[in-house]
Order: sequence, then C-alpha cells, then structure tokens
Amino acid sequence: MQKVGILGASGYSGEVLVECLSRHPRVGELMLASSTHAGELVERVLPRMSGLVGGARFSAAGMDELKRFEADVWFLALPHGVAAEYAVCLVESGSKVIDLSADFRLESAETYERYYGKGHAHPEWLARVPYVVPELAEESWREAPLIACPGCYPTSILLPLCPLMRAGLLSGKGIVVHAMSGISGAGKRASLEYSFCERSDSVKAYGLGTHRHLSEIEEQLGKAAGGVVEIQFTPHLVPMMRGLASTIVVPFEGRLEDVYHEWERVYAACPGVRLLRGETPDTRNVLGRNRADLAAFKDERTGNLVLTAAIDNLLKGAGGQAVQIWNILNGWAEMTGMAG
Amino acid sequence: MQKVGILGASGYSGEVLVECLSRHPRVGELMLASSTHAGELVERVLPRMSGLVGGARFSAAGMDELKRFEADVWFLALPHGVAAEYAVCLVESGSKVIDLSADFRLESAETYERYYGKGHAHPEWLARVPYVVPELAEESWREAPLIACPGCYPTSILLPLCPLMRAGLLSGKGIVVHAMSGISGAGKRASLEYSFCERSDSVKAYGLGTHRHLSEIEEQLGKAAGGVVEIQFTPHLVPMMRGLASTIVVPFEGRLEDVYHEWERVYAACPGVRLLRGETPDTRNVLGRNRADLAAFKDERTGNLVLTAAIDNLLKGAGGQAVQIWNILNGWAEMTGMAG
Amino acid sequence: MQKVGILGASGYSGEVLVECLSRHPRVGELMLASSTHAGELVERVLPRMSGLVGGARFSAAGMDELKRFEADVWFLALPHGVAAEYAVCLVESGSKVIDLSADFRLESAETYERYYGKGHAHPEWLARVPYVVPELAEESWREAPLIACPGCYPTSILLPLCPLMRAGLLSGKGIVVHAMSGISGAGKRASLEYSFCERSDSVKAYGLGTHRHLSEIEEQLGKAAGGVVEIQFTPHLVPMMRGLASTIVVPFEGRLEDVYHEWERVYAACPGVRLLRGETPDTRNVLGRNRADLAAFKDERTGNLVLTAAIDNLLKGAGGQAVQIWNILNGWAEMTGMAG
Amino acid sequence: MQKVGILGASGYSGEVLVECLSRHPRVGELMLASSTHAGELVERVLPRMSGLVGGARFSAAGMDELKRFEADVWFLALPHGVAAEYAVCLVESGSKVIDLSADFRLESAETYERYYGKGHAHPEWLARVPYVVPELAEESWREAPLIACPGCYPTSILLPLCPLMRAGLLSGKGIVVHAMSGISGAGKRASLEYSFCERSDSVKAYGLGTHRHLSEIEEQLGKAAGGVVEIQFTPHLVPMMRGLASTIVVPFEGRLEDVYHEWERVYAACPGVRLLRGETPDTRNVLGRNRADLAAFKDERTGNLVLTAAIDNLLKGAGGQAVQIWNILNGWAEMTGMAG
Repeated sequence: MQKVGILGASGYSGEVLVECLSRHPRVGELMLASSTHAGELVERVLPRMSGLVGGARFSAAGMDELKRFEADVWFLALPHGVAAEYAVCLVESGSKVIDLSADFRLESAETYERYYGKGHAHPEWLARVPYVVPELAEESWREAPLIACPGCYPTSILLPLCPLMRAGLLSGKGIVVHAMSGISGAGKRASLEYSFCERSDSVKAYGLGTHRHLSEIEEQLGKAAGGVVEIQFTPHLVPMMRGLASTIVVPFEGRLEDVYHEWERVYAACPGVRLLRGETPDTRNVLGRNRADLAAFKDERTGNLVLTAAIDNLLKGAGGQAVQIWNILNGWAEMTGMAG
Repeated sequence: MQKVGILGASGYSGEVLVECLSRHPRVGELMLASSTHAGELVERVLPRMSGLVGGARFSAAGMDELKRFEADVWFLALPHGVAAEYAVCLVESGSKVIDLSADFRLESAETYERYYGKGHAHPEWLARVPYVVPELAEESWREAPLIACPGCYPTSILLPLCPLMRAGLLSGKGIVVHAMSGISGAGKRASLEYSFCERSDSVKAYGLGTHRHLSEIEEQLGKAAGGVVEIQFTPHLVPMMRGLASTIVVPFEGRLEDVYHEWERVYAACPGVRLLRGETPDTRNVLGRNRADLAAFKDERTGNLVLTAAIDNLLKGAGGQAVQIWNILNGWAEMTGMAG
Repeated sequence: MQKVGILGASGYSGEVLVECLSRHPRVGELMLASSTHAGELVERVLPRMSGLVGGARFSAAGMDELKRFEADVWFLALPHGVAAEYAVCLVESGSKVIDLSADFRLESAETYERYYGKGHAHPEWLARVPYVVPELAEESWREAPLIACPGCYPTSILLPLCPLMRAGLLSGKGIVVHAMSGISGAGKRASLEYSFCERSDSVKAYGLGTHRHLSEIEEQLGKAAGGVVEIQFTPHLVPMMRGLASTIVVPFEGRLEDVYHEWERVYAACPGVRLLRGETPDTRNVLGRNRADLAAFKDERTGNLVLTAAIDNLLKGAGGQAVQIWNILNGWAEMTGMAG
Repeated sequence: MQKVGILGASGYSGEVLVECLSRHPRVGELMLASSTHAGELVERVLPRMSGLVGGARFSAAGMDELKRFEADVWFLALPHGVAAEYAVCLVESGSKVIDLSADFRLESAETYERYYGKGHAHPEWLARVPYVVPELAEESWREAPLIACPGCYPTSILLPLCPLMRAGLLSGKGIVVHAMSGISGAGKRASLEYSFCERSDSVKAYGLGTHRHLSEIEEQLGKAAGGVVEIQFTPHLVPMMRGLASTIVVPFEGRLEDVYHEWERVYAACPGVRLLRGETPDTRNVLGRNRADLAAFKDERTGNLVLTAAIDNLLKGAGGQAVQIWNILNGWAEMTGMAG
C-alpha cells in the first residue's frame, strides 16, 4: 500500500485522478490538495465523487504541508508554469512525481519558451524527464523520479503514428492532423467562451498553427522518425463535455496490411489500445475508458493513409493515463483503478 | 407573384424551404407535396411551421396532380434517384425546377454510377444542368430550366477553394479536407444510428474515401483548376442538430494577402459569404443564416494554407441556397425570404 | 418610420431585439447601445447578426447620448435595478419605453423589495406601468409611456392560467407549477455554473420558493382571480440553449371542454398562442417563434387539470414579446419583424 | 463464485448489467444472451464494453440453452410481456431471477391489465414476487426466488416519499410529481421520435395521467401509507442521454427537520442514498453512480414540502439497482461491481 497525493485535485483532470485512485486497491493514504478549495469538503466541490471520498477535505497546497505527507507518489494536475516548481521540490523530497502538465513534456527549453511564452524554471531537468505514452515509451522510463504524462491531443496522434514511423513505414513528411475535442479539454473555467450557450451548436477550429500541444507532438514524432517532423495540426472544439477524436492524413505508398501488422505487433498486449477494422473510432465508445480506439484506411485513389483515433480526453488523455503509468512502474495490472 | 411547389416538403430540407417560401413576398400560391404525408395537416407534421402555413395540407406527389398545378417553379427535396424522374417531367411540363438532390450535380454519368451505385435515368440531361453555387456559377446558368443545387459539404468546400484555383493561386494538388456535420445532414430518419442516445457525446469519421459528395466536389474543383483534381475528404458526424464546418489544408507558396485579395474581389458584393480575419468561423454564428463564413491562415512554418468555413447545412447547404438561386434568377434581392 | 433604440443590445435578449428590429419594416434609424461594448462593431460581438447590422457599432449608454437620439421608442434589455433609472429618464425625455427587466413588473414596492433585496428607485411609477402579456392585458395599456414586458417563466404560466381564472373556472387554490428553462434564461455569463461542462447532462431544480419571477406570477394571478393567489413554483435548468416549458397542476371540477372553450374564446385571433389537442407542447416546436403552445389534460382519476406550455424564452419570453407589444401599440400586424 | 446470466444484454439496461457484472469479483461464468444479436461479438454491438468482455459472443435466448447454463442468477433486461415467460421458467429450473421489466412489479393483475393492455401470463406469481428498492424493502425479500427490480421513475419517487409516509409524516393526499428523464429511458430504439434531431432542444411532457410507471408508484405508496394513494404524475423528456430528476410537491404541516430526521434514520447506512441540505440534486452529480441524491425544502409560505431527487436512470433506475439487489442477497458490499 502506498501513500499517494494529488495536487490540483479539484479540476477536471484532478477529479478523474480522485475517481481512479480513491478506489485503487494499492492506495493506502490519499491526500487531495487544492490551493483554491483548501479546507472544503471534497464531496461539496466534486459531488460525483461523494461515494468515493467519504468526509475527506482538500488539503492546502503549501510546500511544507505536501512534503510532510511523505507521499510515495504525487500526481500533479496543475497549470503549466505552476507545476514545474512543485515537481522539482517534491522529487527532491523523495517522492515520485507524475506530472500531467506540459512543464516537462519537451526536451528543448527553446521550444518551451517559444510555445509557452516564458523561460522554463528548471531547464536542467528537461532532458532527464521521460515522456511516457505507456504503450510507446522505452523501458528505461520506469527508473525516472519525475515523469511527464502526455496531453490529450498528443496521445491521440502519437499512438497511431509512432509505430509506423519507427518501422519506417512513414517518412514524417506531409502529415495533416485534424482533431476535435470536447469542452472539458479547456479545463474548469468561468468564462463566457466556454459557457453552455456559446458552445452548444458550435464547432470551430482554433489555435491554428500555434497550439501548444503541437510542440510535443512534433518533438515526439521527430524522435520516432529520426529527424525533424513538421505537421499541420488543427484542433477544433465540438459540443460535448468529454471525448477527443483525431483524423490523420499522410501520403503512404505501402499497403494497409502493413499498417495493421505493425500496430498489432506493438499493441497486441496493450489493453489501452483497440484496433478496429472496417469501422471508425467513435468517442462515445471510449467514454469512461482509458483506451484509444484506432483504425486505418488506405485510399487507393489518392495514395493517402487515413488514420482515425478516439479517446476520452480526461482518461487516456489525462488522469487515466497517469494512473496507468503508475500501475506499470509498480508492476501492477495496467488498468487497475480504472472502471473497465 | 409566382406559383411555387415544394416536393418532399416534410423532410429537414423541405421544412427549410417551407419556412423561406411561405414568407416570401413573391410567392403567390404554394403547393407542399409529400408522398408520405399526403393529406395531412402541414402543421401536424412540421409544428414549427404552424404560424406560417395556416391550415394547409400536404398534397399527394402524383405526377398528374403536380403538373396540373402549373407551377412557375418546383423545388425538389427528394432522395437521389427519385428526383431525376420528377425533375425531367416537371421541366417538360413547363416549370422551372431547382433540384436539391444529387441527381443532376454531376456532368459525368460514369461518375454518377460509380458513386451512386446505379445508372442515371436521364444521362442526356447531365451536361445541360448547371451546378449552381450562386456566388461561383457563371452567368449563363440563369437560362437553364433545370438547376442543380449543391450539397452541404460541397458548398462549404467550393466557396473557399474555387476562387483561389480559378485565379491560379492553388494548383489543386495535395488538398486535404476535413468536415464536420450536424446530424440533420443525414436526413429525417428512424434509425438507431441517428438516435439521440447513439449520437450524443459522439464524434466519428465516416464514409472515408467514398462519400458521395466527393464526386461533385472533385468535378467542380477540376473545372476551377482546369484539370483533374483529387482531394482527401473525410466527413465526421458531431453532436448537434444543424451546422457544418470544413477545414481545408493545401500547400501554398503565396501570401495570405493574395488569398484575401482574391476572395474580396469575388465575394465583395455577396451577402452569402462573410470573410473573417484573425478569427475562425463558428457554426453557431451561421445558425439560421444563408451564409458561409470563411477564414484563411497561412502557416509560415509548414508552408500550408489552412482554410476554414462554416455554414448552416440546412440553409446555405440546402434549402436556403435553393431559394437564393431562385431569387437571383428572378432578379430579386438574394436573401429574400431568408430571416437575416 | 420610427427611431428605435435598444439599450443592453449585446446580451441574449438584446440580440433577439437586434434580430427582430433590424429587419422590421417600420424601423427607420436604429441605435444599439451597450455600456460594455460601446464603440465595438456589432458584428464582432454578435456575429449571427452580421448580415443584418452592416458596419454598425454599439453606442455608449450615457444618458445624454441616449436622449440626444430622440428615439420614438426604447427597448431596455438591462439588469433589474439598472433599468429603472434609464426608463424614467427616457420616458421623461419623451420616448416610449418598453422595459424587459423586472423593474416595473410589480405594483407593490414592498413585494419588489422582498424579492429583489433593495428598495425600488421609483416606487411612484409602479402602479402606472402596465404589465403586458399582449394576449391578456387590458386595452388601456396602449396609452402608457412606460410598459413592463413580462419574464419568460411568467409568460408561460399566465397564458394558460389567466383566462381560466378570469372566467371563474379555477379558484387559484392549490396551483403547482413546474418549469424547465434552457440555459440562456440565466443571461450571458462568464461563470463556472453556466459552463458547458457543468450544464451538459444536468437537470436540476433551483430557487425553490424564492425565485424572483414568483412575485410577478402571483401578483398577476391574484388580479385574474380577484384575490390573493399563492402557487408552488419550481424552476429547473435543462441542458439546451433556448426554450422553456411549464407544467401546471391544479384541482379542477369542470370539464376539459370548458378549458378549451375559454381558451378559444380568448385566443382565437392570437397568432402568439397555439392550442394543441391530444398532444403536448414541445420546446423544439417553438424554437425561433414568438408563440406559446398550450395544451390541457383533465385527469379524471385525480380530478386535476394539467396544463402544459412551451415557449422560446428569448422570443415569447423576452425580445419577441417586446416587439409584439410595440407592433400592437402602433396598430401593425403583431408578428411584424418576427421570422414566422 | 457464481454463474450469472444476463438476458436482453444488448439494450441500454443490459449494457449496464454487462458493465457491472463483467468486473464483479464474485462472477465466475457470465452468459450474455440476446435474441437479436445471438452469435455476434459482444464488443461489436457494445463497443464501450470491449475492454471488459474480451472475445465473448452473445448467446441465443432459447429456453433450453438458457436452462442448460444452470445459472445461479439471471438478470432479465427484457420488454414487459416477454420477461414473464422467461422469469417463471428460469425460476422453475432452479435459478434466482432478478427481473428489470415491469412484469412482476404489481401485486394486482387487474392493475397490470389496465396499464399494460393485456392480461398477465402468470398472475399467480404476482403476490409472491417482492418489489425491491433495496433501501426500502422488508427483510423477507431475500428469500424470494424471483425479484422485481423497480423502474427509474418509481425509484426516484419512492426513495424520498416512502420513509415519510411510513412514519406518518405525510398522508398521501395531494401529491404532485413532476419528473424529467434522459432519452435512454425510452430504450434502444430506431425511431424518428427518439432521433437526435427531434430530441435536441426539446423538452416535452408525455404520458399524462397514463404512464405505466404510475401503477407501481401508487401501489407502493399505498402500502407505505396504509391506504389508497393517488398522485398526479407527469413525466418529461429532456435532451440528455442519461439521468432522471423528480420534483415532488405535497402539503405538509410538519417541520423540515422531521423530514431529514426520518430520512437520516432510514438511510444512515445506505451508500445508495445521499442527503443534501441547502442545495438541490443535479443529474450530473449521479452520472455513472448507483445512487439517489435527495433534498427537501419546506415552503413556509405555501405550507408545501418540495422533495427533489436525481438518479442515473440506467444505474439506480435499472441495472445498478439490480446488481445492488444481488449483492445484498448474497451478503456482499452493496456497491460491489459498481464504479463508485
């Protein structure tokens, strides 16, 4: 049994962590910390969790208080910029840290500054923190004290693409990605833009050419391809609370069978990936699941490969993946704590 | 004042025609024909229209009855395959016909057969029927007795692309289109697939590489480019009743200003197109409007042009565009009958 | 042609006023005033209106500026408390004022203070301002310089009940009202509570026994009944942008036919009310319509009458009704400016 | 470990049973039977369940096949009328049966015939089958071989009312119930009425005075009150997939504290009921939970008590409650198999 802490436990990703970890059979003590809700009953702030959290209250997020808890592992569901400071301190105090923010997802401090608009607080850590999509990361990540959990868009894009690029089936040239996210991807926000009235009946593209997730997608694809990769990535908001789908178009001279063959080789033993044939992924089918559904289509007319993927942005795109990472590094069944 | 008939008036596109034409100041007599609801009160079948249709009943759709009405114009909101027969008969009886189905949208009977799965009933008409996106069609279309009104996906794709291809700014190579449609695009259907429960929280790609609208999109783009054009087109269903957005990626060596310059040249006097700068189209903003919102973004990093468009699939993508066509060929203000 | 001003033109009710009045054939000059968006292009703030407003900008809401416009009529779509001051000044400067806020809906200053939490700024006006549901108000209201336009919940409740109470069919005892509103009823708000994520999949009761609209409902029902009326009113939020439905239960010894007979007598010539038999009102059927759909059911088992009503809260429950009032007092067709 | 069968496993209630039982630690063998999908892969029909069901296929629903499985317990998620036959046969073959249909929810065969339109196939069983809302049913139900699992509307209404009526706090006179259900309450259906397009933006009352659930609600309330109870029950459809809320108004001379006191006495040890004070239940907060949230409000002005309740119609209103029943009769923790 381990001592586990969640920092930023009151947001949407934090809530998913609360859900998975409060019923996780290996969690002994659980600390739920929140700077905005310190002292409040968890079930008042997160009523869906009331059956899981009993009379627990949010702890304050002061560093001393957090360190005193002596957690085996901390899950950080904090905004970028804020997470870095906590992560380094908590690691240095002896805890494992799984960071759901973007703060340690990049290797390059220059790229971080370009996309996030300010210098990184701990650039010396960047190269030492593994970026872990569990189905794709190299074995060695399990030793690291601080782990970067990828974002929702990247997870839906790297899972279909990376195995094909590593196998040399795709060169990394000419990739066009179109992604559609439910509104919870924008976080728990009091803003007109994310109000029910403004987002219902609304589909729109945003962040053209500049979305922050683009940086980690390209860095990871570059590693898979063994060279610089540039993609055209266009995210969209669609009117649903949870769920994210990506459609990827890329020139491809190979056969569809090669794609499925490679995917099957890599994902055969992975409960977090489901391969579909003759149908396309649907976000409804992964709702509440820590799983990506993938499919491939070869358009013989155009010579393009069309890859489609769907995930639950709050699970496989955030909190579920973080718990999966923690399960793996402890040698437990990957989906422990997840509802199926 | 004209005598106007709508055939297939009880479906979603038919309902929009009823809405626009029943308040249209140039409509004298209006016949609403429906094979499935003949004899029923219109306001029972289309309750939103009750303030507009009084105690009118649907007429039967027998050819004799339709001819006897001696309409100046017929709007056909029928399934493909069914429309062709009616269209030719009604034109031969002396009426103008504006056909919202796909039956006369292609010039090539071979293409029709390949995409629609059976031979065309009146192939001799194909070359004579103009395909009319009003902002794009050549002047001569106004003389034609039978006019093809384009589909929802094509309208959202041709409006941004055609002016650029005609001006030689784009070659027609490497076009990737990703489109997202509200559920009404599938028609008024009793099916599990289009039930509220199956479509809520659901985003999914469908019809990869084979969607029927692909045929008319490529034929029209080919004309604009002066050569064969192949595109990668992936439509998606998103959980809303109305609205359609398209995102188009294409390699582009020019400057963004050239795009807007050409668009402004072509669309300056067009109430059916709105050009956005520094923001992206949102389906919510065109809800209930017979208008396409367009924007362009040049990604200097990748060298791609990203075009985004949003329409109301039932208005600018169906019934509204049909009424706009009729207004233009009579010399009336383009948006007459539309609510703004 | 008249000079017309809208104050508070950027909110949801304001937007509906912009929509109806910018295409209204009797509107000459139209001033759109907004304290929060003064100077901005209307089409940037209200993009759905872009085809209707051309290059218009919001005016500032300074009193001098408003007076200088010398409007024939002002429509006030302001928060309660704010509206009162403007209303009295603008009336005194010679304009008609139609106030969509709650500031002049009550006759009793005590009731106002109890429900709105502070004293009324102009209590001397309360008894002189008619409360106008156009289908129910007495003729004399047309002379008044300042008119109170009822709220969304009250309109949906008074239309079914008032004729029956005036006719003595109902005593006013034992009325239970349950109402369900789309989220736009809460106004245009940057708040977590009204965010897409919090309101999707959410139905909840609120304001039990204390909702502010209760005060005007009971005051008006009391007048219809000729005595004090107390009702049990429970509003609910439901996950849709627009629309409002009310279900009213009341003990009733009469026959169902008496209800319809009285309704028909009162509403026979009213385009703003539709009477349904053998079916129940559906908010979808009044979407975009300035109309209430009503139905009655007599439960012979329990002896209760069940009245059901549906309106579009932004039209018949706000902006549409205000325009209808203005049309009537000018002797124009009631639905002028409305889309059908 | 037990052998467990689900009959009607492909519908919405069936799917929830699959979800709860496939991860239930006491389930040994699990048979999923479906007459419409016999032989098909479960994960093709219910893709959200793919991580839970492996390569399982639906069994046929022939009686011999079902008997041969020798289940310890059968869960029947079948239409009324169909369930009765299976239930009696399977019980007679030695299995426990938990029936989610309405077939054994009533004690009176006359009432059954009046509400369901035909005679009951096994009236002799009616008095012997306990109606089990687990928090309310008398101890003796655990011995019964065949158990009736209540419907969604009844569960949301009986939980707040029964304790108060048993304690004599409420007489059973003058109860008005207004309920709002997500669309999945209507089952998995290919029909225009339940299509996405018809139900979005739609709130409407239905089944006034005749809804079938009314019969079991009144029968159970009558038992709690010790006499005949008639209520005014009006269900509504609201635009969401899952979730159900009820608002109950009843004259009440007592104090609010008495209500909470009695509720606390009865529900203190019940994980399936949560009592709220100073706030109202929200369907979003019980989504995915086998729990009812309840609150009470005493309106001192009117003398009425207003009770509000929210459940997930597919869990506490169907499959979850059935599993809870099974857990209890085996002496396991009540929420075993449920996700929290």
